[in-house]
Amino acid sequence: QSSVTVYGIVDTGFSSIDNGTDRTNGLSSGNNSASRIGFKGLEDLGGGLQTEFKLENGISTDDGSGGSGFSRYAYIGLNGAFGKIRMGRQDNQISEAIIKLDPFSAAGVGNARNFYAGGGVPQRQPNMLTWLSNNYGGFSGSLGYIFGEVEDDNSANRGIGAQLSYENGPLNIQLAYQKQNYNGTTNVLGFSGTGADLDDKNILLGATYSFAALKLHGFYGERKLEGPATVAALGTGNFNDKIRTAMLGITIPLGASAIRADYIQNDNKDIDDADNNAWVASYTYSLSKRTTLYATYVRTDNDDNSVMSVSGPSAANFTAGENGSGAYLGINHKF
Amino acid sequence: QSSVTVYGIVDTGFSSIDNGTDRTNGLSSGNNSASRIGFKGLEDLGGGLQTEFKLENGISTDDGSGGSGFSRYAYIGLNGAFGKIRMGRQDNQISEAIIKLDPFSAAGVGNARNFYAGGGVPQRQPNMLTWLSNNYGGFSGSLGYIFGEVEDDNSANRGIGAQLSYENGPLNIQLAYQKQNYNGTTNVLGFSGTGADLDDKNILLGATYSFAALKLHGFYGERKLEGPATVAALGTGNFNDKIRTAMLGITIPLGASAIRADYIQNDNKDIDDADNNAWVASYTYSLSKRTTLYATYVRTDNDDNSVMSVSGPSAANFTAGENGSGAYLGINHKF
Amino acid sequence: QSSVTVYGIVDTGFSSIDNGTDRTNGLSSGNNSASRIGFKGLEDLGGGLQTEFKLENGISTDDGSGGSGFSRYAYIGLNGAFGKIRMGRQDNQISEAIIKLDPFSAAGVGNARNFYAGGGVPQRQPNMLTWLSNNYGGFSGSLGYIFGEVEDDNSANRGIGAQLSYENGPLNIQLAYQKQNYNGTTNVLGFSGTGADLDDKNILLGATYSFAALKLHGFYGERKLEGPATVAALGTGNFNDKIRTAMLGITIPLGASAIRADYIQNDNKDIDDADNNAWVASYTYSLSKRTTLYATYVRTDNDDNSVMSVSGPSAANFTAGENGSGAYLGINHKF
Repeated sequence: QSSVTVYGIVDTGFSSIDNGTDRTNGLSSGNNSASRIGFKGLEDLGGGLQTEFKLENGISTDDGSGGSGFSRYAYIGLNGAFGKIRMGRQDNQISEAIIKLDPFSAAGVGNARNFYAGGGVPQRQPNMLTWLSNNYGGFSGSLGYIFGEVEDDNSANRGIGAQLSYENGPLNIQLAYQKQNYNGTTNVLGFSGTGADLDDKNILLGATYSFAALKLHGFYGERKLEGPATVAALGTGNFNDKIRTAMLGITIPLGASAIRADYIQNDNKDIDDADNNAWVASYTYSLSKRTTLYATYVRTDNDDNSVMSVSGPSAANFTAGENGSGAYLGINHKF
Repeated sequence: QSSVTVYGIVDTGFSSIDNGTDRTNGLSSGNNSASRIGFKGLEDLGGGLQTEFKLENGISTDDGSGGSGFSRYAYIGLNGAFGKIRMGRQDNQISEAIIKLDPFSAAGVGNARNFYAGGGVPQRQPNMLTWLSNNYGGFSGSLGYIFGEVEDDNSANRGIGAQLSYENGPLNIQLAYQKQNYNGTTNVLGFSGTGADLDDKNILLGATYSFAALKLHGFYGERKLEGPATVAALGTGNFNDKIRTAMLGITIPLGASAIRADYIQNDNKDIDDADNNAWVASYTYSLSKRTTLYATYVRTDNDDNSVMSVSGPSAANFTAGENGSGAYLGINHKF
Repeated sequence: QSSVTVYGIVDTGFSSIDNGTDRTNGLSSGNNSASRIGFKGLEDLGGGLQTEFKLENGISTDDGSGGSGFSRYAYIGLNGAFGKIRMGRQDNQISEAIIKLDPFSAAGVGNARNFYAGGGVPQRQPNMLTWLSNNYGGFSGSLGYIFGEVEDDNSANRGIGAQLSYENGPLNIQLAYQKQNYNGTTNVLGFSGTGADLDDKNILLGATYSFAALKLHGFYGERKLEGPATVAALGTGNFNDKIRTAMLGITIPLGASAIRADYIQNDNKDIDDADNNAWVASYTYSLSKRTTLYATYVRTDNDDNSVMSVSGPSAANFTAGENGSGAYLGINHKF
């Protein structure tokens, strides 16, 4: 029994979503951080070697629904003098960087990944090999390789990523590159579609700096879609689309409370009237180390050809050009 | 690890089902109480405040099948001087009352919810907010609100419920009201169909009384279906259908053994030849606090336009007007 | 918490599969033994009586996918002077015997069940009643009955099995018989199809013998398919098909390491050019009692009308008459 730990998060709250036309009220799950249940373990193998695993599934604690398997993490790794090597379903490199930079730690309705480059950036990925370095004087990094597992074609559906961190006292700098190929898959960039040979290339640079009373967060990224594809949200074509994205955020710790806010702006350089931006503000109050009350507000502004939505009850459908908003009030409990 | 408890029930037994025409023999799960696996926790927050959660999924321990997610319970709550507030998937109010009144505690093949008003009464529901009062001199109660989560229409698919309990020594009185709207949903009253704007209204009054050697159980309820709908079992129309239901039951504790029995009669006031009734008898023998052997017999009597079935192997199909019966012999183990 | 144990295996590795035409590279799960998560318990009831349960689900730790429910085991049992009685989803008798005879313990890509009689032999089955005897001077046995659960027909889809073991010092002898009927089911012998009234009869005899430096493994079996059916892999007809299968294997323990290998030959007596064979070799190195590194190679040789595949990334499609091979390198961790 000591060889496995059962853990998770139950996060449920009231939500009120405006899709620009109508309002939907209800309960929703994972507003502050995704509701989940997981199993993890760490074994000391001696000689400085460890093996660890994590199996983690996302769940919906408003209605009890949830997929089978482990939708979030399913990896095993070896840790040693060489760093950490992991195989399975895990965060890709751009995701690792956003987690460190986002005031909301890439979690919940304020998750910067939901809004980065208009949404849809791949995050956790299957069939992935990762190397995470040890820390060398504040510098650390990671490399990732995602097997495409296509017959007779190692490059189709392949992903590669690299991340470099520098942490020194109050300063944290993150640089990440991620390239993902889509070839014959039916899910492209999180949308239904078919990528004939589409490359999704991302580069991101950001930093956080902690002052006495607050912490500043910022990143700047560029995303390029290159190649032929048919994507529900984007149409059919030989894409050569560049999106530039910038985030500015702040965290103000106030004892048991905290205020967090950020603004994300996406500038589509190749598709007209497809820019969008989002801003998020939250207030949290910790009842204990494990239990937190939260109130969060999210707003997205869309150009006529953009659909960047906010999270909430599934009935809330978003259409192009409409601005959305969501208000969330709930409780997050870690176990 | 102390912050979460893994628990559940494995209940499997032989079952022999007669659908009025043919007999089906096999194994079935959850005959005495539903096989399940769950994760729960309770955190003391200080100042008389607690937070608790429960995530519980139903499983079939005869064949290993089971849905994903948590089909039974998925809620988080705050407990304090104000009582208990819970959000998520949980029992509605009429279900809370039946659990207290039924000799079978609304569990297993004898579950009075299976037979109340001909079957199909909603029990656990998603997106539900509940308040459970503390006990005031024997009186307690609960209120429930089920969000319909329909865009621009807070009343569609909404449910509300109220329950009042009085417990004093050997006496337990339960009064419950439950109203559920069905609007555009594809599952109406547990049947496939579409409710254009159907209201399902239930009121239930019952009591149990414990004598030295036995306990008596009884309830009387009325269910009204009002409004337009298309329901597989009921046809298409503007419903105005009233069903009256009555239950009489007994529990006879005999040391490690117990005998339970009840009779439920449903009187459909508006549809001809649609009355039905059921009776259930069981003998249980506890091998320990956690492990119980059981033998249970269930019988349903249907009018020509009624299909009230008994639980068992899925191959046993029931048709209108046939009387069904089931015999179950198995083991129930709590962990 | 003491009443349930959470346990499992995470097994992930690199795999390179050749389907005879093309190669597919990637990660795959369960190469050395199936990745899984389970919940089990054992309660002492006093008087020499125990109750035990096991709920175990297969998972894919390369991509996090997995079915709902418990695809591997879901049973409850009573243990006593009479032996063990179990109800639910569990190993059938021929599977119990192969587990004891196979150098790979019927696990992972080398699992002899994958190659026995050309593959497709039923193993774990639902709605099954099993009796396992105690050990009497080295002799033990088990009997199994699988309920078909067909209305008004107890013999349709029914399975029966018997197994006899003799274990004495270095010697282990296994004899098993298994008969499974397929009647109107859509899955026949692991293939899509419909058995009108097909019997699948298996008889298997084998032994292992441990010398000082190595252990020898062998079995010989005969499988008969009798009766009318339509099976995707075999066509439509009134089957009267006999397959003879033989396995020879070796285990060489080398301290923390071990070498295992076997060869399985299948001789189809009634269908021309449908013979096939497989050989498997593995090297394992244990980092601890719970964590093992492995390298495994599998090869299958198919006649023109045979498709016996090797395990690996799902994209690797096998066609009739092609020989397949797979190489696997990974880590297996028990928790």
